[in-house]
Amino acid sequence: MKIAIVGSGAVGCHYGGLLRKAGLDVRFLMRRDCLFVRHNGLCLRSPEGETRLHPVQAMATTAEIGVCDLVLITVKTFSNGDLPDLLPPLIGKSTILLTLQNGLGNEAFLSHRFGPERIMGGICFVTLNRVAPGVVENYSPGYVVLGEPEGPPRERTQRVASLFRSAGIKCRVAESLLEARWKKLCWNIPFNGLTVAAGGIDTAAVLADPGLTALAGELMEEIRKIAAALGIVIGEDFLKKQIEQTRPMGPYKPSSLLDYLDGREMEVESIWGEPCAEAERLGVPVPRLAMLLRLLRVLSRQRLPHG
Amino acid sequence: MKIAIVGSGAVGCHYGGLLRKAGLDVRFLMRRDCLFVRHNGLCLRSPEGETRLHPVQAMATTAEIGVCDLVLITVKTFSNGDLPDLLPPLIGKSTILLTLQNGLGNEAFLSHRFGPERIMGGICFVTLNRVAPGVVENYSPGYVVLGEPEGPPRERTQRVASLFRSAGIKCRVAESLLEARWKKLCWNIPFNGLTVAAGGIDTAAVLADPGLTALAGELMEEIRKIAAALGIVIGEDFLKKQIEQTRPMGPYKPSSLLDYLDGREMEVESIWGEPCAEAERLGVPVPRLAMLLRLLRVLSRQRLPHG
Repeated sequence: MKIAIVGSGAVGCHYGGLLRKAGLDVRFLMRRDCLFVRHNGLCLRSPEGETRLHPVQAMATTAEIGVCDLVLITVKTFSNGDLPDLLPPLIGKSTILLTLQNGLGNEAFLSHRFGPERIMGGICFVTLNRVAPGVVENYSPGYVVLGEPEGPPRERTQRVASLFRSAGIKCRVAESLLEARWKKLCWNIPFNGLTVAAGGIDTAAVLADPGLTALAGELMEEIRKIAAALGIVIGEDFLKKQIEQTRPMGPYKPSSLLDYLDGREMEVESIWGEPCAEAERLGVPVPRLAMLLRLLRVLSRQRLPHG
Repeated sequence: MKIAIVGSGAVGCHYGGLLRKAGLDVRFLMRRDCLFVRHNGLCLRSPEGETRLHPVQAMATTAEIGVCDLVLITVKTFSNGDLPDLLPPLIGKSTILLTLQNGLGNEAFLSHRFGPERIMGGICFVTLNRVAPGVVENYSPGYVVLGEPEGPPRERTQRVASLFRSAGIKCRVAESLLEARWKKLCWNIPFNGLTVAAGGIDTAAVLADPGLTALAGELMEEIRKIAAALGIVIGEDFLKKQIEQTRPMGPYKPSSLLDYLDGREMEVESIWGEPCAEAERLGVPVPRLAMLLRLLRVLSRQRLPHG
């Protein structure tokens, strides 16, 4: 089993590192940290302790990596445009491309370029941070939801899930990956968005303000309506739970807020742009989502200078 | 004719200064600049040159000023709560209270506290900046629209307008002050709001972005609907003109943006809060205005620290 990690940020290093720790042949495509990791290996930190992995196969090109059985795609979604050039050397007859990226449209993008048959998707519920070259901190074990872009799980879905579990990664197989993605958007769209649009505040500050809390609920309601138009039922209870379960998280900073505060580009199109385009295609009015998207597009370009 | 200026910021010093220059008995209520102006007078700068006024009657309390014929109210609207304590010493039997403040609800607030009979309103179309204690810069002559809170102009409306004109202040009497206020909101709500909510950018940057430009138009459309529910007709042409006339203004910074960038409180409730509350009372859906209001309330509290 040969595995490539395309996009060796926090998500790629964390899951790739766990698979490598379990003894699998994992090869990391790396840019800025390539030489560093080749010399020093990877370090995975969690509340339970530190895992040092050395040596690690860090490579600068996909040609060096060669054909793999499984490719984890963990680049930021605004770099998806690079994938058609990057991926071909990794792809053999039965290679699976598994996108673990945020938001919507990634499976469709890959299917269009590389054929739907080899595409799988996953959603990471985990908080990770790359704190230094080759060093990733993990604040909660979290879990991954794996699924098929179209239709119910297949034998291969279960196979990849078993592989993940054998590496100590908590893993669930979704009956509908699309439903799971829309449900995750019910949290990401309001909380990743409003923490940025309200000036760079954490989730506790959003929930301390009744107006923003109501707005978060109204945004969720818009997402629920888009999902409904796609035949995906999201209950009102689920939406309420998104607010309730965020309160105990305290002053949490969603990934987009961290990107914004650190002066990095945000994944605006996959988290807000694609759902908004979907609403437009379906004729579902989403004035608040569309407004948030428009503000975030500008805020992402104008991101704070201290990054 | 004895005139009091309550709120000696840029607007108060500018119009009060012009009335004083015309030889009228003008008394300025001043806080931070009181002693400075008492010693050094006022300086009004414009592209045409500089006017120095000395001595100027700067006073620290309204009791010192005493009963006046006309009171110009030029405090920021978030300080309206101070007026019930401040104004009584100025008010005699026939005193007129003329609010030259931004947004909606100021005439109603004063009418409720001091009786509708003595209240008049005005809208200032002018760009002013207090650049130092006692020094106000004026970048374009601009004009004032005067009117009655209820109904058409009266004899006193014309009288105050004549007084302003005699001091060289361009002045127009509105058939409907309320209509004039809603028309001004068609510009202030989107441009004062979006320049702040999009991260502190000028009007040229708003209009350089097609998404924000469309959003500005949609916000205007919401305002038009509230006005329509009040029987005020605002044409689509008028809305289009608001965008077209903003382009040649270049990188203009609306007053709320200047407040935000300088770390000062913004006039959130009078510009966005009151129109939104009016929409709610009338049952007009204004999802974008409500969202902008909620973001600005938080942004105003979280204003940038370099003020």
